[in-house]
Order: sequence, then structure tokens, then C-alpha cells
Amino acid sequence: MPDPTSTSTLLAIRQSLSGLEFFRKMIAGELPPPPLVALLGLRLVEAEPGRVVFAGVASQEVYNGMGVAHGGFAATMLDSALGCAINTMMPAGRVFTTIDLQVHYTRPLRREVGELRCTANVVHAGSRVATSEGRITDAAGKVYAHGTTTCILVEPPRGE
Amino acid sequence: MPDPTSTSTLLAIRQSLSGLEFFRKMIAGELPPPPLVALLGLRLVEAEPGRVVFAGVASQEVYNGMGVAHGGFAATMLDSALGCAINTMMPAGRVFTTIDLQVHYTRPLRREVGELRCTANVVHAGSRVATSEGRITDAAGKVYAHGTTTCILVEPPRGE
Amino acid sequence: MPDPTSTSTLLAIRQSLSGLEFFRKMIAGELPPPPLVALLGLRLVEAEPGRVVFAGVASQEVYNGMGVAHGGFAATMLDSALGCAINTMMPAGRVFTTIDLQVHYTRPLRREVGELRCTANVVHAGSRVATSEGRITDAAGKVYAHGTTTCILVEPPRGE
Amino acid sequence: MPDPTSTSTLLAIRQSLSGLEFFRKMIAGELPPPPLVALLGLRLVEAEPGRVVFAGVASQEVYNGMGVAHGGFAATMLDSALGCAINTMMPAGRVFTTIDLQVHYTRPLRREVGELRCTANVVHAGSRVATSEGRITDAAGKVYAHGTTTCILVEPPRGE
Repeated sequence: MPDPTSTSTLLAIRQSLSGLEFFRKMIAGELPPPPLVALLGLRLVEAEPGRVVFAGVASQEVYNGMGVAHGGFAATMLDSALGCAINTMMPAGRVFTTIDLQVHYTRPLRREVGELRCTANVVHAGSRVATSEGRITDAAGKVYAHGTTTCILVEPPRGE
Repeated sequence: MPDPTSTSTLLAIRQSLSGLEFFRKMIAGELPPPPLVALLGLRLVEAEPGRVVFAGVASQEVYNGMGVAHGGFAATMLDSALGCAINTMMPAGRVFTTIDLQVHYTRPLRREVGELRCTANVVHAGSRVATSEGRITDAAGKVYAHGTTTCILVEPPRGE
Repeated sequence: MPDPTSTSTLLAIRQSLSGLEFFRKMIAGELPPPPLVALLGLRLVEAEPGRVVFAGVASQEVYNGMGVAHGGFAATMLDSALGCAINTMMPAGRVFTTIDLQVHYTRPLRREVGELRCTANVVHAGSRVATSEGRITDAAGKVYAHGTTTCILVEPPRGE
Repeated sequence: MPDPTSTSTLLAIRQSLSGLEFFRKMIAGELPPPPLVALLGLRLVEAEPGRVVFAGVASQEVYNGMGVAHGGFAATMLDSALGCAINTMMPAGRVFTTIDLQVHYTRPLRREVGELRCTANVVHAGSRVATSEGRITDAAGKVYAHGTTTCILVEPPRGE
């Protein structure tokens, strides 16, 4: 029986669960978060068809040396949410992966901003290509970063 | 005397050093790396006017649960290199910060790919706006991700 | 008295009108459309604070030779709407200009799709930087392209 | 016999010519330019494996009413070059189409800048996904805009 706490088995598990089932198990703590997501203190908190929310705090561990969060922190939070939003719409065995990510940084992110929410919504879900848009906000709804992604269907390797 | 190992003083130090002097001290180990850069195992290895190189490995700690590196890993590496390339051209006290980041993911990144280099070059350095482009390659020169950024001059706060 | 049908005076007129007043005069036909907008058969049809709508048709004149509209057509429509949405929030004499544009193409655009609407909404309006997001849809609400932009305040030239 | 001056047959012709052969016939005047390219006064002037150059002038017909070229002009020029660069590497019947376009505007474009060149180079050419980067420069090599694109293989329709 696969160890559900091992991330190496997440892909195998996703083959037999729809994206939405998979993410709901993650929210329930029945599946572990992806390693980088855990490393940055982020967590998936909501998932429904076409929409997910991640939560987290811009702790000093993710700063850039200039007194604010590194751009990679918001990029990781957005990439997580944008890709998961798309995969909530996909059945078992059908996995989409990111090929493009665009991020706009609108306000500096500091620890003092407190709990952040990154909400992503699907814009287009086609058979091979899907897109989504998302934003990172504080408790008052101020936007700190926002962006979009394009994902494509992961196909069996053909030597690309 | 400021403690050079404390990241909280990096911004203050940058006020009295040009971007290039600052990055060369970081390469020499006289200044600590930014927290998120250290957390992801990345390091600045080359800096010259208009160009920098970061190095690192896509270890399993930065994976996404699907058996490959999370898109946030490449985004962080590119964001670091793209922003630093621009700041190599700026004198003491003149700091540029990222407002836009675009990333193209061209190949899956795994630990087995080995040591990665992320090279960034300035395209445009204006008085208020600057842009750069960069790519992440392996030892054979294969491109795993590439992207561009727009940075703007950090001005004294005016209530934005 | 300036000739309101000459586009060369649009910038001068914008110095004495807010963005919203300016666009409402354009919708009313009291100011001419920008030349490229007219050339592609696009027209501004709605403007309110933080939001505008352009309309148009992907006629064969804007095709790319592959039987569908050239990507430049949707990019022009989005760039127009995204920039105008931001300028609806700006007072007389305060003009924002685009520094970054990102476009996602989600469905092929053909003449048969009929009348298109490109709706853009402001996401962030700061003192120097603003962002917006927009999408091109048909009468049924299907999304053909969407994107985001970053605009910055146009300042008096300083040799950039 | 197909009329080589009709753009409606360009796609059919591309089925029997490689991308490079196709573009070289266009440069030689044996095939007509795409309609939007012609409408904006742009022309393909160089094509080799993985690289193309378009030329053009930012005439007042492509202005935005603020005394400079509309962002859609540079976006169209870049989209043309970025997509063609990728298609120079594709055999007969294998056509790639743009799904994402990112543009950075670095200097205002005016008629007085004179003849522009837009050069694009392939970064990654995979079996299903390809990317390229390009820039618009004047005779002195100054960069007015630059950007990147992602293209995907056009597959037979399956109801997307």
C-alpha cells in the first residue's frame, strides 16, 4: 500500500483520483502538500470546480534581502493556485502542467501584512490548453500580486 | 559596524555600494545571500555589468508532488537573476525592483539534470524602467525555462 | 480652436479632461478614435470608472494568412481596453502608458464569430504603476483571448 | 491552380511547403503577405532556420492618439516575427500557432524613428511546444520593444 505521506506517490495517486478529489484529500490532510509548497509555509485551503485558494504568510524566510518578500514567493503561490484551479476540472489520469506564468507585483509583501490568500479561477479549459487568473490579497482585500497561467495536457513522452 | 551576516542590513549596505560591488561581495561570501535564495539552495556565481549567473540544483525539496520541480523554483531562480542583472548597472542608493515577471517552462526540471545555471542579461536600462531576459540551462546548454522581467526604480514612499 | 477630428490634438485635449470625460466624448463621437483603433475597425463603446468595453469584428483584413485573425488583432484590442480602463481612473493631465502586455489566445478568431466585446477592469491603481485584466468574448460569452497589462505614469522626459 | 495572390490559399500552400520554403517565397514576392501584416505596412525581409526579421515604420496610421505608435503595432510586429521564427523550423504540414505573447515596451515609437527591424530567434523547439524571443530595434540598435511567445502544434480539431 502506498504511503500517503510520501510525495513520491502523489502523481500515482492522481492517476486514480480526479483533480478535485485529489485536492480535497490534500485539504483534509489525507495527502501531503508538495515539498516546495510546504517549504514556503503555503497551504491549499479551498477547492471547488474551477477555483482554489491557497493561504500563507510572507515570513522573513522568504525575503529577498531588501526588506520585503522575494518575487519568487508570490510567483510560487500564484503558480500553485493557477495550476491547481485548472486541475480541479480534470478527471483522473488527466493532468495539466504549466508552460507559461505571468506575475504582476503591485505592492510590497512583508510579514506584517499577515495572512494572505491566493485565489485562482479558470478562464478557459480546452482539451489540450487551459488558462487561469489569480490574485494574492490580504484580509482587507488589497491586491499584492496577480497573474495568469497557461497549462497544457501532460501527454506520454515522445522525445520532446 | 553592521553585522554582514544579517540580511536585515542588506538594503542599508546597498545604499552605499553600487549594485555590482554589492553582488561581488555576495559572491565572495562577504555578504549573506537573500533568505529565499538560500532556502532554495541557489547561489549567485557571476556578476558583471548587465549580466549575472545564478547556480543551483532542482532538489526534491523544491518538487511539486508530480515528480518534477515546482514552477516556483524556476520562477525564483529567474526572478533573482533578472532583477540582479538590472541592478548591476545601478549606482549606490539606486535600487530597481520587479513589477512584472514572465516565465516559459520548456522542459521538466528534475534533480537528475544536475547543476543548473540561470543567466540573465539586461535588454533596456532606462532612468525609471529597465528590462532583462534570462534562461535556465544545464551543463549541455539545454534550456529548461526562460523569461523576462520589468523592473522600476524604487522611489521614496508616497502613499501608494 | 483645435480641430476635434484631428488625432494630433488628442493628447492636448487629454491634458484638460479626465480620462473618463475623454473616453465619454470619444464614445459620443465628439473625439475621433485613435488611428490604429479605427484602422482595425474597433470602437470604444462603454467607459465607467475602472472599466471599459471595446467592440469589433475579426474581419478578413486582420487575418494572418492561416485562415484566422492574426494575434496582433486581439493584442491591439486588449491593449486598447486594458490601457483605457486604467486611464478612466486618472484626472486631467495624468496619463498612464503601457509598459507590459501579456496575451493568452484561447480560441481561433474568425469573421464568423461575429461581434466581439473586449472588456477590461482595473486590478491595481497606484500613484506610479497600475494594472488591469481583460478578455475578448463573443455574444455567448465564450473567451477568445484574455490578458493583463502594466501601465506607468507618463512623466516629463528626462533623457530616458 | 490556386491563385498565389489570394491569402485564403496560404494555409493550403503551407501544407506542402516547409515553413522556411514558405517564408522564402513570401520574401521573394511569390506569396502575398498576411492581410494584417500588409495593412500595417510590415514585411518579412529575412528567414533562416530559427530566425526571421520583419521590417516596417511606425507611421501615423498606427498611432494611438497620444502622439506615439499604439502598443498593438509593436505587438503585431513581434507576434509575426516570433511565430514565423518557430515555423522556420517546421516541415510541410506541421504548423505552430501562438498561445501566449508577452511584450515589453521600452521606448516610445514614432514615425521619426525611421525603419524598424524586428528580429526573432527560437529558444526552444519541442514536438508540441516551442518558444522564441524577439526585439524591435532602430538603425542604431536601440530597443523599442521586446518580447517572447509560446506556440503549440496545430492539431486536427477535436471539439475544443
